[in-house]
Amino acid sequence: MDTLRLGVAGLGRAFSLMLPTFLADARVRLVGACDPRATARAQFEADFDAPAFDDIEALARMPEIDAIYIASPHQFHAAHTRIAARHGKHVLVEKPMALSLEECDAMIDACRAANVHLIVGHCHSFDTPYLRTRELIASGEYGDVKMIQALNYTDYLFRPRRPEELKTEEGGGAVFSQAAHQVDIVRLLAGGRATRIRAAVGNWDAARPTEGAYTATLWFDNGAFATLAYNGYAHFDSDEWTGWIGEMGQTRNADDYGSARRKLSRVESKEEEARLKAAGTYGGEAYTAPSRGQSEPRAYQHFGPLIVSCERGDLRPLPDAILVYGDERRARIELDAPHVPRAEVIDELSAAVHGGIAPLHDGVWARGTLEICIAMLHSSAQQRDVLIGGEHSKHSKHSNNRDH
Amino acid sequence: MDTLRLGVAGLGRAFSLMLPTFLADARVRLVGACDPRATARAQFEADFDAPAFDDIEALARMPEIDAIYIASPHQFHAAHTRIAARHGKHVLVEKPMALSLEECDAMIDACRAANVHLIVGHCHSFDTPYLRTRELIASGEYGDVKMIQALNYTDYLFRPRRPEELKTEEGGGAVFSQAAHQVDIVRLLAGGRATRIRAAVGNWDAARPTEGAYTATLWFDNGAFATLAYNGYAHFDSDEWTGWIGEMGQTRNADDYGSARRKLSRVESKEEEARLKAAGTYGGEAYTAPSRGQSEPRAYQHFGPLIVSCERGDLRPLPDAILVYGDERRARIELDAPHVPRAEVIDELSAAVHGGIAPLHDGVWARGTLEICIAMLHSSAQQRDVLIGGEHSKHSKHSNNRDH
Repeated sequence: MDTLRLGVAGLGRAFSLMLPTFLADARVRLVGACDPRATARAQFEADFDAPAFDDIEALARMPEIDAIYIASPHQFHAAHTRIAARHGKHVLVEKPMALSLEECDAMIDACRAANVHLIVGHCHSFDTPYLRTRELIASGEYGDVKMIQALNYTDYLFRPRRPEELKTEEGGGAVFSQAAHQVDIVRLLAGGRATRIRAAVGNWDAARPTEGAYTATLWFDNGAFATLAYNGYAHFDSDEWTGWIGEMGQTRNADDYGSARRKLSRVESKEEEARLKAAGTYGGEAYTAPSRGQSEPRAYQHFGPLIVSCERGDLRPLPDAILVYGDERRARIELDAPHVPRAEVIDELSAAVHGGIAPLHDGVWARGTLEICIAMLHSSAQQRDVLIGGEHSKHSKHSNNRDH
Repeated sequence: MDTLRLGVAGLGRAFSLMLPTFLADARVRLVGACDPRATARAQFEADFDAPAFDDIEALARMPEIDAIYIASPHQFHAAHTRIAARHGKHVLVEKPMALSLEECDAMIDACRAANVHLIVGHCHSFDTPYLRTRELIASGEYGDVKMIQALNYTDYLFRPRRPEELKTEEGGGAVFSQAAHQVDIVRLLAGGRATRIRAAVGNWDAARPTEGAYTATLWFDNGAFATLAYNGYAHFDSDEWTGWIGEMGQTRNADDYGSARRKLSRVESKEEEARLKAAGTYGGEAYTAPSRGQSEPRAYQHFGPLIVSCERGDLRPLPDAILVYGDERRARIELDAPHVPRAEVIDELSAAVHGGIAPLHDGVWARGTLEICIAMLHSSAQQRDVLIGGEHSKHSKHSNNRDH
């Protein structure tokens, strides 16, 4: 088993959410990091006996690094990717890939020029239940995909945020942050090239003035259409329809209603909210580290209820199974519990770095998802369909028609 | 308590579904009927000791009739309404009101000229859970409605059908037959005037070549938007998300998978299918009459999972309760079990006929719903938004902005 020697750019919330994977997956070694916060750097050095810099250049210069995991705030993804590529490091960059298609193009070009792989994730489209559903579709047993319904009702907007996360123009809000998951999943399952979108976004809390909700219809060149609906205003929680298994595969307490809003109601300023967020992430005073020997997660991660309707059956991926509703009978395909959360990301990264296997979630793919997210905002503002894959899109010709 | 003396035009499936109401509601007396099928007429005369004609004119001439319930096939609604009105009878007409807006206009005009009430139903927007949800919204406690998500996955397309029910141009398919419910419910709850719609319809079973599925986004002038999704291809069944209580308020057997498709698979021709449908309706050889003393239905009728998102809470009407997800707490408002199924229709009809109270579900209201259903078909075919309430619509100016 080849070791993946990773550098980490940004020790914030995204890193906190990947850390259980890095700790549990025997293939991964964290060999360096960078972050502007001294407390985070000190924690990293203590935890991993590896250097942490305040500067990504210094990190990227480390010769022993295979790949850099870029988990800095969205607005730094493009610049940090270029630096990593220039130093010959493969790149795993968090979603959303960037904030504009021009940035995506620059990232794709930089990685191609440096001959390094560019993988965008974690994104919930890596989750095994969706990948297995995709295999079931590819088997042909159920015929063509015709209609997809994806739903998610969460407390997204009421989790502690930095100020820019509540500003759409800086990459904040549910479209950049949450549709990035849902669009990616739906594209993966629809199996065609997205051609047009019509969306409506909801932005109705004056204290948190960015998109908290949206609905969208996405059309594909194979005739399938998909409906995406998201609401992050912390009321109804659609984990009720996934057996109270949460987004991270954890068992939820169905009776713990309203906790996100309750916690936030005790916060008195934006600065305090940003401090609250920082305190709860890696190196912060309220941070609890996952132990290397932590109990295995109960189920796969997920992004809400989803129904794929094919000609001869509906498929419903769940965190622990796939429900198959065929013409004649219904079946439940049990999924073995995951040993390592998000191991799918390491699978894809390792296959690329050590096996030279082109990743599914590469830059061109992720650019396609960002294009759709941006089109959602335009469609809602302009009250019309927005076509996907316009002629001005440098990499769009290949952005959706992957290996389906 | 004033008696409602009803004549029934058409003793088919719609009548079969209303019959439990007529039998159980002490206000109703069935005093006459008409139907082209001699077996249905004979059954009616035996059951109700009242005349049954092969001609609606003869029925409409009966002086003792207060109102005629028009439950003939969709294509006859307009002509039959005009006849009833001409004879001074109030009209309760099944949904969809008619197949074109011109027919709706003629029906509205005929009833106005005759000074009789025109009520369109049963439609699931009469169901108490939706009416109570509307009251909760009107209380103002949760703020404005911002977003509605309505879903329904059923076996609609695989129930036995007459040939015209599988032809869109003759009023068949899920848009005319099923969206008529969903649009009506969503309009009632959104509380504004619908201004535009964008839809995609699904029609993917060559043996049953009409719409079996759709998705649509509907915008309202108060800023709310609604997503409607429907799939009648008999795979996933969304009654799973309403506690396995069926559309008619009945307790479903969760293990009885695939029965609609299984029954239909034994049918060898369109003629046999039409006979199968006729056999199961009133007067048919396989028809089982509801008894006057039948056990009470367990719950209210419904039309699938629905979430209304307001500024300060989500409301989720269920067949036996309304779930309220507020900012701070979640509550379940239990609904007393109904004594008579669909009594809400008789409430509204009785209030109009005897109390002179303008009905909620009048012709202008129902015309508004048909306009939206027709616009769904156009939007899908033309791949664009369709505006609602165009200048050529005779009654459209008042079609949506009701007493909200």
